[in-house]
Amino acid sequence: MLGNFTYCNPTKLYFGKSAIDGLNEELPKYGKNVLLVYGGGSIKKNGIYDKVIGLLEANGKTVYEDAGVMPNPTVEKLYEGIERAKKAKADLILAVGGGSVCDYAKAVSVSVNCKEDPWDKYYLRMEDVDCEIIPVGCVLTMVGTGSEMNGGSVITNYAQKLKIGHVFGENVFPKFSVLDPEYTFTLPKYQMIAGFYDIMSHILEQYFSGEDDNTSDYIMEGLLRSLIHSSLIAVENPEDYEARSNIMWTATWALNTLVAKGKTTDWEVHMLGQAVGAHTNATHGMTLAAVSMAYYRHIMSYGLKKFVRYAENVWNVSPDGKSDEQIAEEGLKAMESWMKKIGLVMNLTELGVKKDMVESIADSTLIMDGGYKILTKEEVIKILTESL
Amino acid sequence: MLGNFTYCNPTKLYFGKSAIDGLNEELPKYGKNVLLVYGGGSIKKNGIYDKVIGLLEANGKTVYEDAGVMPNPTVEKLYEGIERAKKAKADLILAVGGGSVCDYAKAVSVSVNCKEDPWDKYYLRMEDVDCEIIPVGCVLTMVGTGSEMNGGSVITNYAQKLKIGHVFGENVFPKFSVLDPEYTFTLPKYQMIAGFYDIMSHILEQYFSGEDDNTSDYIMEGLLRSLIHSSLIAVENPEDYEARSNIMWTATWALNTLVAKGKTTDWEVHMLGQAVGAHTNATHGMTLAAVSMAYYRHIMSYGLKKFVRYAENVWNVSPDGKSDEQIAEEGLKAMESWMKKIGLVMNLTELGVKKDMVESIADSTLIMDGGYKILTKEEVIKILTESL
Repeated sequence: MLGNFTYCNPTKLYFGKSAIDGLNEELPKYGKNVLLVYGGGSIKKNGIYDKVIGLLEANGKTVYEDAGVMPNPTVEKLYEGIERAKKAKADLILAVGGGSVCDYAKAVSVSVNCKEDPWDKYYLRMEDVDCEIIPVGCVLTMVGTGSEMNGGSVITNYAQKLKIGHVFGENVFPKFSVLDPEYTFTLPKYQMIAGFYDIMSHILEQYFSGEDDNTSDYIMEGLLRSLIHSSLIAVENPEDYEARSNIMWTATWALNTLVAKGKTTDWEVHMLGQAVGAHTNATHGMTLAAVSMAYYRHIMSYGLKKFVRYAENVWNVSPDGKSDEQIAEEGLKAMESWMKKIGLVMNLTELGVKKDMVESIADSTLIMDGGYKILTKEEVIKILTESL
Repeated sequence: MLGNFTYCNPTKLYFGKSAIDGLNEELPKYGKNVLLVYGGGSIKKNGIYDKVIGLLEANGKTVYEDAGVMPNPTVEKLYEGIERAKKAKADLILAVGGGSVCDYAKAVSVSVNCKEDPWDKYYLRMEDVDCEIIPVGCVLTMVGTGSEMNGGSVITNYAQKLKIGHVFGENVFPKFSVLDPEYTFTLPKYQMIAGFYDIMSHILEQYFSGEDDNTSDYIMEGLLRSLIHSSLIAVENPEDYEARSNIMWTATWALNTLVAKGKTTDWEVHMLGQAVGAHTNATHGMTLAAVSMAYYRHIMSYGLKKFVRYAENVWNVSPDGKSDEQIAEEGLKAMESWMKKIGLVMNLTELGVKKDMVESIADSTLIMDGGYKILTKEEVIKILTESL
């Protein structure tokens, strides 16, 4: 049953070839000072940096830079970004990159005028924003996180061995995002498929929760089928525009609040993956992939009906003459085989996790209460161990 | 392939039980004068009128009324509404009713300050709005049209025998909409199922177009499966909250611009249905139902692959040992049987169309160019005749 909710997603999207020209519509809405945020510099190699700078200059902006945002943005980098935004008197933060860069831009945007320590306030204490927010716009170069159209912002504190995501409200959503599928063509394959699994996991963690009949589950089955179909094409030919554009669009709708409306969600796989990330700095999507099969096999019997539905509606498993357990397991096997086919990392060992780190990773794993089984610490250890 | 597009849907939704209390959040954003727009007065019987008036008064508003909006709002009623809105110096138009009331409210909102004749400008010449718009809010009491979260506005001119829909831009979308599934419980069954088919037709007319692979088609298959499932429950028990809430949510997403993004669409069934409506004043959803089977059987061979996909993915038709034509026809048969089961009107005769009206209805039917076959006038006549 759909519970009560409000829905509003104010982000304006420019999608497709030459979507970057949308900046000409958006930039005039903001003041002169733009803080340009980006990562390791790949945008300088593929020409996106020059294109963006050209449009900023054509729109009369003074550009300040904040480069070097890492894949798992750290709290130390956040403090640096706050200082840069203050010095720039930024009227707009323009994030050019993947989800990490967008997440980081949002963190800076709510922290510049924050009177307390932002890590403590937003991430440890999960408090709301009560200061002025600097508007954020995004130019996406990697898909997966959905950060281009939501309020999510994940920051890592290695000293505390914590990687925490705060989901901010509509006022923190990017004001606009530029989504050009061609901008994702040059991404290395490892990052590309990690992004695919991040999308998959976003959908599954909202799907595998609740026993009710809910339109959102039907929408998610559609998104999953589209993702599976297009991902198999994209790994063969990363420049297949049709496949890459469908995946980009699926990624946005997988985590822009729609499919969670009125229903419960789980998110335990993200909690496991983020704990691994805080210990290893491994690529986010791969941490999710490495723990997923052990997690889903562990909870399958607690949410059997949904796993049967998943097998039939997403993986076309025929139910004829099979028990529910057999149908469900066949669905998970089909998923596992797809994961291997697109080249995901299927175990934690490959990500640098050793047996003696399991206890500490389990200590950093937040326990969620929306899934089919609320895990005990022993179960977390079991799942992590099975994932080695 | 997803074509280029922009996406922005700024409407804020309040969904669920007691969603009406969302008015306390929204009303303070607007000036004192509210034009309350509604239909035949059913809202006075079911208590919604009293509830809304109470909230308007509690928020210090001066309420002006514009009642009597008919199921197919006329251009004469539009002229009356413009005068009422002017006299009220309306700061907000609050539509309480179904899609017709919302459509009408939007027509008034763009016409009050329009210097030309709005019928000529917006409907005959399909021009953009270039005057000040009065903001609109909606309280929905019937689902189907999606008007609560889009820019659509259909107005009928009986003198000219024309029923035309203008799809306005984001600035005309309702600023907010209240969606309480319980508000739809008291709707007569005939109107309820007509609304169900309106939703179905919205999805199908966006689905049956194009040969490409497109995430939107997968989302639509999910919406269709949810609608079919819930509609069968709702006709048995109209007060099944789960079913009615899923249908309400599906209706909104079927026509709030999302599923059409980046793809071609058809809309010929709506053109046929609207022409019938302009000649008979029949209930909108029933006009669509009465012409659908003849239309889809007529175009099936031109878009065979999509009809096969529809049969398999929406109606679970097994393809084993069958030709594409057989699979596609089996899908249409399953659809036809569902239509009869929920009680739709399956022919035009029941809606008051006589053989000698067919030529004139064909003359009023706009020909669209997004479907699998661009119809000739002879084909329109054939489809209408087969639908008698």
